[in-house]
Amino acid sequence: MSKIEQLQTTLAEKNLDAAYISDPMTIGYLTGFYEDPIERVMALLIFPDAEPFLFTPALEVEAAKGAGWTHPVYGYLDHEDPYALIAKHVREQSPDPIHWGIEQSHLTVQRLRGLKGQFPTAKFDTDLTPTIEHMRLIKSADEIAKLDEAGKWADFMLEEGFKNLKLGRSEQEVAANLEFALKKHGIMHTSFDTLVQAGAHAAEPHGATSQNPIENNELVLFDLGCIVDGYCSDVSRTVAIGTLNEKQQDIYNVCLEAQLAAQEAAKPGITAEELDRVARDIITKAGYGKYFIHRLGHGLGMSDHEFPSIMAGNQLVLEPGMCFSIEPGIYIPGVAGVRIEDCVHITEDGCEPFTHTSKELKTFKLA
Amino acid sequence: MSKIEQLQTTLAEKNLDAAYISDPMTIGYLTGFYEDPIERVMALLIFPDAEPFLFTPALEVEAAKGAGWTHPVYGYLDHEDPYALIAKHVREQSPDPIHWGIEQSHLTVQRLRGLKGQFPTAKFDTDLTPTIEHMRLIKSADEIAKLDEAGKWADFMLEEGFKNLKLGRSEQEVAANLEFALKKHGIMHTSFDTLVQAGAHAAEPHGATSQNPIENNELVLFDLGCIVDGYCSDVSRTVAIGTLNEKQQDIYNVCLEAQLAAQEAAKPGITAEELDRVARDIITKAGYGKYFIHRLGHGLGMSDHEFPSIMAGNQLVLEPGMCFSIEPGIYIPGVAGVRIEDCVHITEDGCEPFTHTSKELKTFKLA
Repeated sequence: MSKIEQLQTTLAEKNLDAAYISDPMTIGYLTGFYEDPIERVMALLIFPDAEPFLFTPALEVEAAKGAGWTHPVYGYLDHEDPYALIAKHVREQSPDPIHWGIEQSHLTVQRLRGLKGQFPTAKFDTDLTPTIEHMRLIKSADEIAKLDEAGKWADFMLEEGFKNLKLGRSEQEVAANLEFALKKHGIMHTSFDTLVQAGAHAAEPHGATSQNPIENNELVLFDLGCIVDGYCSDVSRTVAIGTLNEKQQDIYNVCLEAQLAAQEAAKPGITAEELDRVARDIITKAGYGKYFIHRLGHGLGMSDHEFPSIMAGNQLVLEPGMCFSIEPGIYIPGVAGVRIEDCVHITEDGCEPFTHTSKELKTFKLA
Repeated sequence: MSKIEQLQTTLAEKNLDAAYISDPMTIGYLTGFYEDPIERVMALLIFPDAEPFLFTPALEVEAAKGAGWTHPVYGYLDHEDPYALIAKHVREQSPDPIHWGIEQSHLTVQRLRGLKGQFPTAKFDTDLTPTIEHMRLIKSADEIAKLDEAGKWADFMLEEGFKNLKLGRSEQEVAANLEFALKKHGIMHTSFDTLVQAGAHAAEPHGATSQNPIENNELVLFDLGCIVDGYCSDVSRTVAIGTLNEKQQDIYNVCLEAQLAAQEAAKPGITAEELDRVARDIITKAGYGKYFIHRLGHGLGMSDHEFPSIMAGNQLVLEPGMCFSIEPGIYIPGVAGVRIEDCVHITEDGCEPFTHTSKELKTFKLA
């Protein structure tokens, strides 16, 4: 059953007459056509028993057809009223839809008002967000193949980053160099801003790559990824420059032990919060619990922030096809920061990472 | 009067008890603190007669204070209910707010539901979007200085792009090279994906930079910009490689004439649609009207897509401080595409561009 057919079945079960899908990421997931229309209106209209259609800015119509969408695509020009046109096309498929499903997590109050203006007696109380999140949670073999490919390029980015480490070179220059190497291969988008943080700067997990120089006898943290064929990668490694002191060594070892234990424990049947605890207990026992200030991981797929969230309070039981990061971190203000991360997918009896760069501590002796 | 005070005055005039500002760009504009919290809740709460406060994920609290926001900042952790905390802090400032202003163009149905859950008898019918758009429409001297600086770096990007033109080199490689040159100066964000399109590919104004090679006797279109200190630049130039034929020459000349005429006509008193027509009439008269398939321009500031829109139907009268692009284009499928663009700000008696790269046709003889 195609993803559209799955959603049509859900609409029938929920006694809904129509669904208005507005999140460009969901539209990409369901149709194969991904585009951010910025301030313009774009929607996918789905009905339990009639043909779905895409509604896009006129400029996007050919691209949507080219992406393999075989149902109708209707365009609108900037001076036209998109909601009036949507209503006309909806009524061709379903004369009087009363019960609508919408994506409450994406649709704005303004756009709901536009839609309500065309269907004043309809009800828009059903939120399809949980249904769609649930669909996206379990990745297909095809999606996992794309995540594998994106992971390979993340490993490439790390390798280029390591090659570009030089004493005195700024974090930003290292990041610019590794991104340039990637783009020369025609991969033009990173999953997020490439992060390179040296020394104590890495203890700010929410900081950005800066003009700080790479110096001797410190740790350097990389967190990066890229988008390949619509799917994201995300990986972190921390490496040593010169000679580490005992503290730096210790936090690396503890963080690595936590990461490896969690990756070993990730399999069907364990809950998200139990998995978080596997890593957290190791770090806490070593005395660094208060320096591990974020969840163990986040979901990964078309976006770098999706379900499942691997954290305390999430009792979701892991199942094959779920994809997420395992990224413990220890951040000691003024001293150093370590984070080690692979993203994985749950298999029948364990998990497989998308990235394969060694996690043993790499030490660079730089001139 | 500060921007916050302006908004407080508006709230008093509209008899509103509270405003819930949710668009990160608006929060950045009003507070000086810009951050995209992705899926987490972030809001600025403003009251006509009480102190405003920022509400952010816990990780952002220090950054908000560091950005110069001197009123309270309250954080929340991932496992806490953000709306319950917001309500508690709101009631400290205003015991029983009934009439709320919201940004209907940004707030999602889900988040409005979260807010309504805490204030079940309140009314959320007032849309502050037009008020905020109006404030952002007229740029201050400080904002214009930032746009000037961003424009200088866009000129730098063009210069680097021109230097990197080589026969057989792909559009993507040229784009990667010029972005790398920019990043080496510590400017890490482009305003949008850098566009380099060669030959007939440039006739797809919505296409992306590809692996197509630069070839002789064709036009190459650049459209690019960067973000400096929170403000965007955006510029387009089209250059010649080798010898152009008569048609290529002609569309360049017509497009340039249209661009120069519109830039000359941009001054206080003319309407947005009249300005669009100045350029469109020249292109239409030359026989290329049907190949100029988009509006003349869009607003520019913290974002690359804001008001005013310079297009048919927009009767907005231009005033000093308005900032927008003037970018006529001629796109002949299978032949060539030309776009020439400067962004400008309206002055007392005309306009000033933010970019200064020459618009006379540049010709490169490449080996």
